[in-house]
Amino acid sequence: AHIVTLPGDGVGPEVTAAAVAVLQAVAEHYDHQFTFEEHLIGGCAIDASGEPLPAASLEACKKADAVLLGAVGGPKWSDPNAKVRPEQGLLALRAALGVYANLRPLQVHPALANLSPLKNEKLKDVDVLFVRELTGGAYFGAKTRTADAATDECRYTEAEIERVVRRAFALARERRHHLTSVDKANVLETSRLWRNVVQRIAPEYRDVKVEHQLVDSMAMLLLTQPGRYDVVVTENLFGDILTDEAAALAGSLGLLPSASLGDGKRGLYEPIHGSAPDIAGQGVANPTGAMLSAAMLLRHSLGLEEEAQCVEAAVSHVLAHGPRTRDVGGQGNTAAVRDAVLMAVE
Amino acid sequence: AHIVTLPGDGVGPEVTAAAVAVLQAVAEHYDHQFTFEEHLIGGCAIDASGEPLPAASLEACKKADAVLLGAVGGPKWSDPNAKVRPEQGLLALRAALGVYANLRPLQVHPALANLSPLKNEKLKDVDVLFVRELTGGAYFGAKTRTADAATDECRYTEAEIERVVRRAFALARERRHHLTSVDKANVLETSRLWRNVVQRIAPEYRDVKVEHQLVDSMAMLLLTQPGRYDVVVTENLFGDILTDEAAALAGSLGLLPSASLGDGKRGLYEPIHGSAPDIAGQGVANPTGAMLSAAMLLRHSLGLEEEAQCVEAAVSHVLAHGPRTRDVGGQGNTAAVRDAVLMAVE
Ligand SMILES: CC(C)[C@H](C(=O)O)[C@@H](O)C(=O)O
Ligand SMILES: CC(C)[C@H](C(=O)O)[C@@H](O)C(=O)O
Repeated sequence: AHIVTLPGDGVGPEVTAAAVAVLQAVAEHYDHQFTFEEHLIGGCAIDASGEPLPAASLEACKKADAVLLGAVGGPKWSDPNAKVRPEQGLLALRAALGVYANLRPLQVHPALANLSPLKNEKLKDVDVLFVRELTGGAYFGAKTRTADAATDECRYTEAEIERVVRRAFALARERRHHLTSVDKANVLETSRLWRNVVQRIAPEYRDVKVEHQLVDSMAMLLLTQPGRYDVVVTENLFGDILTDEAAALAGSLGLLPSASLGDGKRGLYEPIHGSAPDIAGQGVANPTGAMLSAAMLLRHSLGLEEEAQCVEAAVSHVLAHGPRTRDVGGQGNTAAVRDAVLMAVE
Repeated sequence: AHIVTLPGDGVGPEVTAAAVAVLQAVAEHYDHQFTFEEHLIGGCAIDASGEPLPAASLEACKKADAVLLGAVGGPKWSDPNAKVRPEQGLLALRAALGVYANLRPLQVHPALANLSPLKNEKLKDVDVLFVRELTGGAYFGAKTRTADAATDECRYTEAEIERVVRRAFALARERRHHLTSVDKANVLETSRLWRNVVQRIAPEYRDVKVEHQLVDSMAMLLLTQPGRYDVVVTENLFGDILTDEAAALAGSLGLLPSASLGDGKRGLYEPIHGSAPDIAGQGVANPTGAMLSAAMLLRHSLGLEEEAQCVEAAVSHVLAHGPRTRDVGGQGNTAAVRDAVLMAVE
């Protein structure tokens, strides 16, 4: 299998290197051939070429079996009025690869429950899979700006909603058969269309229990009843907000992975944390989210379920027994965590 | 002073009656003359007249010194495809009254900290005032719907942003001199305009420390560092989501008030909870949010600060010593809580 890596900015390179090391250990242990090819994206790409997603990066990603990304952005490129911004590279890549379904699993490791802002009894049974629509909505709609006004259009077609909702139904079938669809149907037209599509499709998945929640209620329910949810599907911007909120429950953003999938097997994998400029270059970033993203890559793009579970078990073992990075209460650095996971994989 | 009440649907009438009783007790105790006039809004108005905001209701509100609202909506009127929906009445009222600044204070009563999903040590010093823009954004933008697509436009003018941001700065001056502006400037054009306006105005308020956060980060920070925030200002939809999330911290939605203000003294006051159809008509709803909304009415529309504090102290006393309603771990009904607060006011 051929994997393109896009380390990006800030801690991106550090955590991506750790994830690549894990994939190499898996290849060796299970006797696979993985080839890696590194490319630029984000702020470092702007510095090198003036573009946040150079053509060479995009072409390589299109030819790859999977793409492993670190993070983009940082204070150096954070003027919101700049013509070219690192985030544009990430958004353009998501669109170009057609990865419309962003999977963000949330579980709370028992050994880390004390780090969560939520009371421990609330965290019991928390096991949610968010499915965020990733290539539509206000992120990609028409924008205007005049001297004294601005607009963003949120647009969804039935087809865009249907494909991501079907993916969520299919995932719910593999899990606890419960799907929560989140919208703001009491106010937004796109949400009313969204709800209509979910209601129209639901009879085809009679074994899945469907529930609708308004996004404001859901922001509350994630805190008061987090153990109630199985698969949660929602549009791009709501998904952005709700998954970050949910991530706080895990105790550290550094822990969580994501997979962005389209219709084929090719996917884009990235930890949900950002470029963390405050600790970049110090070798102390938590590589867990990136390593678990590599596990998702093994599962979804390469069809290697056993290998994926091996990585997940290794990471879980290290979270329980250490070493740990600072963000999860330890004193270990990135390399120490990486080496411990490599040991557990072998 | 002349006060229009709009009890609305579900538990709205029950909690509004309790809030009116508190205002009457204040009038008696401090020797004020308050007159009350009740009108329809929401589902009950649709049933009575076919319209969620009948002209008579709106005219009365425009002539009043203040408007006290209960809640709108319920399963009977919840088909998102219906032509006429209860929420439209509320949105039309907010727009017609020009109440662009929605103030939602969040404090966690020490006696109720055990009810919060957050760990107690996180709740120390939580005292946030959200200022949500209430008459713009995707709530009021152009919408389209065709057979297979839908759009919502989020639109903001500089003037719309400036007036609510100035209100937030002014409120920060009366508090801890810290303002957090929340946007999604890395993706949305309206957010870039928002951030520009905040940056342009900030030098006029040199005594206020300004911080910008992206909405996804803020959804997380509200859980990991809730004690860090003072005044938080944001656009309509982000405010809707973040304030419901924050409300979960208090332990029950039933506790929290809101005030919606425009340029004059007239305001619209409502508890942040909804119509709670599951417990409507049983006399067990928590009247605290409505009573604290009445306190905000005394403060902001009638200029009666001492009276407002008297109500707040009475409510706080009852929360500490009981009786309490079920949602906050008690067995008292609405009337018992109301009577205890009335006793404490007198
Ligand atoms: C970097 C930013 C554009 C991105 C988003 O909003 O999608 C990030 O927050 C994410 O969630 O992946
Ligand atoms: C009822 C609904 C339209 C309303 C809103 O979204 O503004 C409510 O959620 C609120 O926060 O007051």
